[in-house]
Amino acid sequence: MQNTASTSVTDAATGETSSLLVVEKPETGIAILRMNRPKARNSLSLEMLAELTTAFKTLGTDADVRAIVLTAEGPAFCAGHDLKELTSHRNDPDGGRAFYEKTMRACADMMLTIVACPKPVIAAVHATATAAGCQLVATCDLAVAAREAQFCTPGVNIGLFCSTPMVALSRNVPRKRAMEMLLLGEMLPATEAADYGLVNQAVPIEHVMTTALDMARRIAAKSSATVAIGKEAFYRQIEMSLPEAYDYAADVMVRNMMTADAKEGIGAFLEKRPPTWQGC
Amino acid sequence: MQNTASTSVTDAATGETSSLLVVEKPETGIAILRMNRPKARNSLSLEMLAELTTAFKTLGTDADVRAIVLTAEGPAFCAGHDLKELTSHRNDPDGGRAFYEKTMRACADMMLTIVACPKPVIAAVHATATAAGCQLVATCDLAVAAREAQFCTPGVNIGLFCSTPMVALSRNVPRKRAMEMLLLGEMLPATEAADYGLVNQAVPIEHVMTTALDMARRIAAKSSATVAIGKEAFYRQIEMSLPEAYDYAADVMVRNMMTADAKEGIGAFLEKRPPTWQGC
Amino acid sequence: MQNTASTSVTDAATGETSSLLVVEKPETGIAILRMNRPKARNSLSLEMLAELTTAFKTLGTDADVRAIVLTAEGPAFCAGHDLKELTSHRNDPDGGRAFYEKTMRACADMMLTIVACPKPVIAAVHATATAAGCQLVATCDLAVAAREAQFCTPGVNIGLFCSTPMVALSRNVPRKRAMEMLLLGEMLPATEAADYGLVNQAVPIEHVMTTALDMARRIAAKSSATVAIGKEAFYRQIEMSLPEAYDYAADVMVRNMMTADAKEGIGAFLEKRPPTWQGC
Repeated sequence: MQNTASTSVTDAATGETSSLLVVEKPETGIAILRMNRPKARNSLSLEMLAELTTAFKTLGTDADVRAIVLTAEGPAFCAGHDLKELTSHRNDPDGGRAFYEKTMRACADMMLTIVACPKPVIAAVHATATAAGCQLVATCDLAVAAREAQFCTPGVNIGLFCSTPMVALSRNVPRKRAMEMLLLGEMLPATEAADYGLVNQAVPIEHVMTTALDMARRIAAKSSATVAIGKEAFYRQIEMSLPEAYDYAADVMVRNMMTADAKEGIGAFLEKRPPTWQGC
Repeated sequence: MQNTASTSVTDAATGETSSLLVVEKPETGIAILRMNRPKARNSLSLEMLAELTTAFKTLGTDADVRAIVLTAEGPAFCAGHDLKELTSHRNDPDGGRAFYEKTMRACADMMLTIVACPKPVIAAVHATATAAGCQLVATCDLAVAAREAQFCTPGVNIGLFCSTPMVALSRNVPRKRAMEMLLLGEMLPATEAADYGLVNQAVPIEHVMTTALDMARRIAAKSSATVAIGKEAFYRQIEMSLPEAYDYAADVMVRNMMTADAKEGIGAFLEKRPPTWQGC
Repeated sequence: MQNTASTSVTDAATGETSSLLVVEKPETGIAILRMNRPKARNSLSLEMLAELTTAFKTLGTDADVRAIVLTAEGPAFCAGHDLKELTSHRNDPDGGRAFYEKTMRACADMMLTIVACPKPVIAAVHATATAAGCQLVATCDLAVAAREAQFCTPGVNIGLFCSTPMVALSRNVPRKRAMEMLLLGEMLPATEAADYGLVNQAVPIEHVMTTALDMARRIAAKSSATVAIGKEAFYRQIEMSLPEAYDYAADVMVRNMMTADAKEGIGAFLEKRPPTWQGC
């Protein structure tokens, strides 16, 4: 196993000196990205956001990586924004506005980096994910949660509506479910999250990582060129009108057909032999 | 309990003399809006539409109201448009066109008023809701239904497709579910409506109002300024592309952070004390 | 029963000489469209695509037809594109590009023809539907599947991501469900497809056709003019913003109110008698 930890940092809020984010490569084609700020419930400080953005960008262009599992250390998966960091800027001359703008922009950019990452990202959610942490799960392409995990957009309870989390949430679950979570700010059990489509599966906690890794392994066995074409096309076509989406997707199919991996894959299928991908 | 009834009217169709719409304020922060045209199955005559629109506008700016429960009197929740009123205009010189235009515009405006109302609206659906009545439930932010209640878009059975109801319906339930309701015009039990996301819960009939009031109470305990910011943002961002939605929602978050209630709420949370809202 | 078979063809790939597509009219108002290329698992060769497009256009303007059931012969419902036909063009001077463009365009046009067809199309899915075959089911207005049937977008397994199938799939099921199917390329049982909204019902295999025909019969009993107005409006309004959708749908309602069938249908309803439709 090859482990690449991010630059080691002493966390101002918690005093933790280990890396905020640990990258592991346990086996061919798979990267595990582990948020490692357990005492702060892996909250998304500006530093954590920067580390995540950089990691997704780096892994996105790493030819050895074909699927990414996002996991976390400690009693929570991710508690969202770092409220202590945010409030520490209340006394800035501008009341914190510039810092909040910087943080919200960095958070949105991190989420958009996951969407733009050519490698599928699978959340392995062992514990509760709240606010921007819930958004993080919603933003991943796939998600496996422990039955004990819970999901929540509790901003409304502290006067700060989960407006950015709802961008991802409302694109994953039916409208009245999203509204209920956002307006009431209460915990949603993982089994209901699976029913509503926020996560793909709710499994016993000891199976969270094995299930996520199994998904990653199956994806890593595909042509990464094909997967990259498909993931990009998914998020682009879903925002188009039906005729536009078909025009666009038909072009994508033709482009995909002309790749070496489609030629190899279709040939192998017709000849009933396993394919050998070039694009990965 | 403070009850404010709308102007008392003698209903032309049913002869009922009580108010079409009764507003109750049973406790701090909560308004109950009761449709009261039971003999006409609370159908949406032009007068009822006007009363509803006015009520949502009035309650929307009433500082004493932080959540609204919409309920109804009699054997049906709401039967949709008033067909007798509509057909009575068949003999107008224009075959009724001007009146139909007026009615459809008034109905759409009423629905959009609910969406634009800064206070969350919770439908407490004790009985069957059909056509524009089903749309009314779909349009509310949240909905609780009695297990005995049913939902239906039966216009197709009488030659008048539920085209305006489908605007709300198709934004609440999966596409093929909506199509099935619209093309077949059959009754959907409340339990299935809850499965599909048309309502949040299907409960025993005696719990409908208590459940809706409980939701209202929990919402009324939040900062109404925060809730208003969030509700508006929800319906705006859901129609944007992902990058646009993030740009917009990030701005909303910053604006929200600068409010007194976010300062108080986050402070109270970090200091482990209950918040005292200004904005409500 | 009146059967109208398409021009008889000798299928190049399978040697089958019967018609690719059989049109049956088992009873008033209903057409059954049967894909009949069982040895090739009803794959969508250019010829099959052309036959389907023509059939939907013809039935769409056939006054005797008010609902269409799409079914298939043999061990599969539809296996998607004809990979043998596609690969046979690898040696074209352009590497097949022109042929692929033609095929993908023809496939998208066929799907859009179903959406544009004024008669509701009900898929009766007795067996597995994959890739563009899964898209075909997603594209139909309604779908009934055998419990034994499975659904799959397996392109990723052969280097050709199911990019056009995902256009229809992602508009029918929650986002993470669609992504799971697309990235993993695994079989989804019909019962789960029904849970997610890809099909309306999963029934015992011997009930697939009777259930689909029953739906068709109930739709055929409505005013076809009303159904046509409603189906068109559904797919148009769903891509609009909420205020635009209401403007549009309110206009549709007024137009619908002015039709003879709405006059008759509402009149019959108020007079408690069965309606007699003109528009069908």
